[in-house]
Amino acid sequence: MSIDSVGYGMEYHDQLGLSRERFADLSEQFHDDSYAGRDYRRLPDYRKAVEKGTVLFAGTVVRGFPKIPRCLVLDEGIPQHFDREIAVEEKLNGYNVRVARIEGDVLAFTRSGIVCPFTTHKVQALVDCERFFEQHPDRMLCGEMIGPENPYTTADCYDVDSVAFRAFDIRDRVSGESLPVRDRREACEDLGIPQVDLFGIYNPSEAVEETPEIVDDLDSRGREGIVMKTVGGGQQLKYTTSAANQGDLAFAFGLPFDYGRAFSFRRLIREGFQSVEFGDSEAERRERAHGVGESLLLPMVDAIEAVEEGERLGERHTVRAEPRVVDALLEHLRKQSLTLDIERDRQVEGQRVLTFSKRIQRSTDKIDTYLDGTIVTE
Amino acid sequence: MSIDSVGYGMEYHDQLGLSRERFADLSEQFHDDSYAGRDYRRLPDYRKAVEKGTVLFAGTVVRGFPKIPRCLVLDEGIPQHFDREIAVEEKLNGYNVRVARIEGDVLAFTRSGIVCPFTTHKVQALVDCERFFEQHPDRMLCGEMIGPENPYTTADCYDVDSVAFRAFDIRDRVSGESLPVRDRREACEDLGIPQVDLFGIYNPSEAVEETPEIVDDLDSRGREGIVMKTVGGGQQLKYTTSAANQGDLAFAFGLPFDYGRAFSFRRLIREGFQSVEFGDSEAERRERAHGVGESLLLPMVDAIEAVEEGERLGERHTVRAEPRVVDALLEHLRKQSLTLDIERDRQVEGQRVLTFSKRIQRSTDKIDTYLDGTIVTE
Repeated sequence: MSIDSVGYGMEYHDQLGLSRERFADLSEQFHDDSYAGRDYRRLPDYRKAVEKGTVLFAGTVVRGFPKIPRCLVLDEGIPQHFDREIAVEEKLNGYNVRVARIEGDVLAFTRSGIVCPFTTHKVQALVDCERFFEQHPDRMLCGEMIGPENPYTTADCYDVDSVAFRAFDIRDRVSGESLPVRDRREACEDLGIPQVDLFGIYNPSEAVEETPEIVDDLDSRGREGIVMKTVGGGQQLKYTTSAANQGDLAFAFGLPFDYGRAFSFRRLIREGFQSVEFGDSEAERRERAHGVGESLLLPMVDAIEAVEEGERLGERHTVRAEPRVVDALLEHLRKQSLTLDIERDRQVEGQRVLTFSKRIQRSTDKIDTYLDGTIVTE
Repeated sequence: MSIDSVGYGMEYHDQLGLSRERFADLSEQFHDDSYAGRDYRRLPDYRKAVEKGTVLFAGTVVRGFPKIPRCLVLDEGIPQHFDREIAVEEKLNGYNVRVARIEGDVLAFTRSGIVCPFTTHKVQALVDCERFFEQHPDRMLCGEMIGPENPYTTADCYDVDSVAFRAFDIRDRVSGESLPVRDRREACEDLGIPQVDLFGIYNPSEAVEETPEIVDDLDSRGREGIVMKTVGGGQQLKYTTSAANQGDLAFAFGLPFDYGRAFSFRRLIREGFQSVEFGDSEAERRERAHGVGESLLLPMVDAIEAVEEGERLGERHTVRAEPRVVDALLEHLRKQSLTLDIERDRQVEGQRVLTFSKRIQRSTDKIDTYLDGTIVTE
């Protein structure tokens, strides 16, 4: 029996705040998916009316997590975007997850609205979900999964051995409306839910003063950046460190024909604006430039040499969980048409520790082609 | 009275080797243009059937100069592309020009088929065109305009004070068929026409051995690269130095929102393959990476700072010629909808020496927008 109250009984279009006609149009954009034998639908891309990752599951909507806009210059971007008090919190480098309870089942949704069996399991081990949903039956817990042992991201700049959860939002599951920042932090505190660091609550002009130093400090620790949001929870803005920009460039150029162009260009541009705004000295600017160059060239060269030696390129991940959870994850990833190469597979204290690589075909093939002497007419 | 014989009397479609129907389709792609009161048509982009820059002028075709394919790896690319003797010549960093005589008038066409008044004048001052066309009435002289004082390019790695011409091809004006390399070099030698350096004539396996050293030497002198072609003149292949790749990156990121993405990506990829093929040591690889990073970041930062200080971005050029030629050039450039800012204008020994900047709007505007705090949702 369900104790959730929001959504059930209302049609999807009403829950989404759309006319029946508008929803009918949008409906074609949803993909069919299933989890543990239950069918659901999810919106894999951004659309005007509805957030990417929005899910229709068992009669209820799980609203997607909104894309957070970004400024290239804090000095002008903060006052442009905000006219009231904002909280500055850490932006973590992991993967975004929404935890919701539907018909009594706790489920973890990734950014694009997929129920991930690994994350669903881990979140319940890491967070007292029962207590959370007792107090917030109609809400979802939004946060970042971080740490080296997860199937999606590889950043290893946190003091986390395997995988951890950090809350950064509590939202109405259907409307997506956020709990005010102070209430959310207090709720997490009370429930013992680990959460992202809060650097301070400022008015916009104070934030312009304070944020560069916060970003510098995060950068020196290899961290990703900050998210600023109105304390009421309505508006958000993000800004990233040079470490994050260069880390992304290195990732992209390790698989240059899959992630290259627009992805890398945007990060290069961010480095340019940051160098100007942060008033790099001549030496600092040159050091930043060298970091940019190394991020681009060295992983690309490694990739070319690997293909030259007959290797296949891929994204390598390690996960650690009960064997049945790892099995479910593998099945889940393969269902998404990923080709996995198992690189290491062992048991440690009853847990299966599996290192696998998601095969990346395009970069492998392109590099191979060019190494074979293929001619480019560009 | 014309002494040219090719083309006249034949219809354009016959000269181009196309059916009447095919030519009718293609015909819409040609742009109308004029030079000194005479109308002509030119093909500004690559099409399957006909080379970019092909011109229809007074009843005759001036065939476009073909795009030269490129390999990313010499070792495999040369034997893939060539099965016979090839000449290895220097690829110069200037602008491509075809010189043809039509109805008695010597005209210089840029790559996209525009008759340039400046180049038309300079070529006749630099080359004995009369003698060339006496001996080759139906041919065109193809070469590179190099040196610091020209309205299109800025490379200054040659021992040229103002502007110079270097021949690299003699082609049938209508069919585009090349004179064999040895015949062409001999003809230029006899006519006193300066030409690109020839490094040697090799079979493909010799070329694989020799070209890396040639490229390294060119690189150390800041030069652009090599063009390899079958001695019969039919097939071509190019390869560029790291200096050229990085110079292009620096140019692109000085105007990042005009030249950025695909242009830069291709050059980054070239650096990766070259680093692997040329067997960079750890230190050389890091040095190359630093060069890449500096090429990207430093010009971008200069551009951002310039816009921050209220400057408009542009491409700066200096030309030196008789006042009437400079007047004609300015009129010509403005007719192409370029906005020019005159930066310096003086007379030296009867010549007008003009420094001007072609205004580049997009990068100026975009940088301005981001400096104003505009939010990016990407």
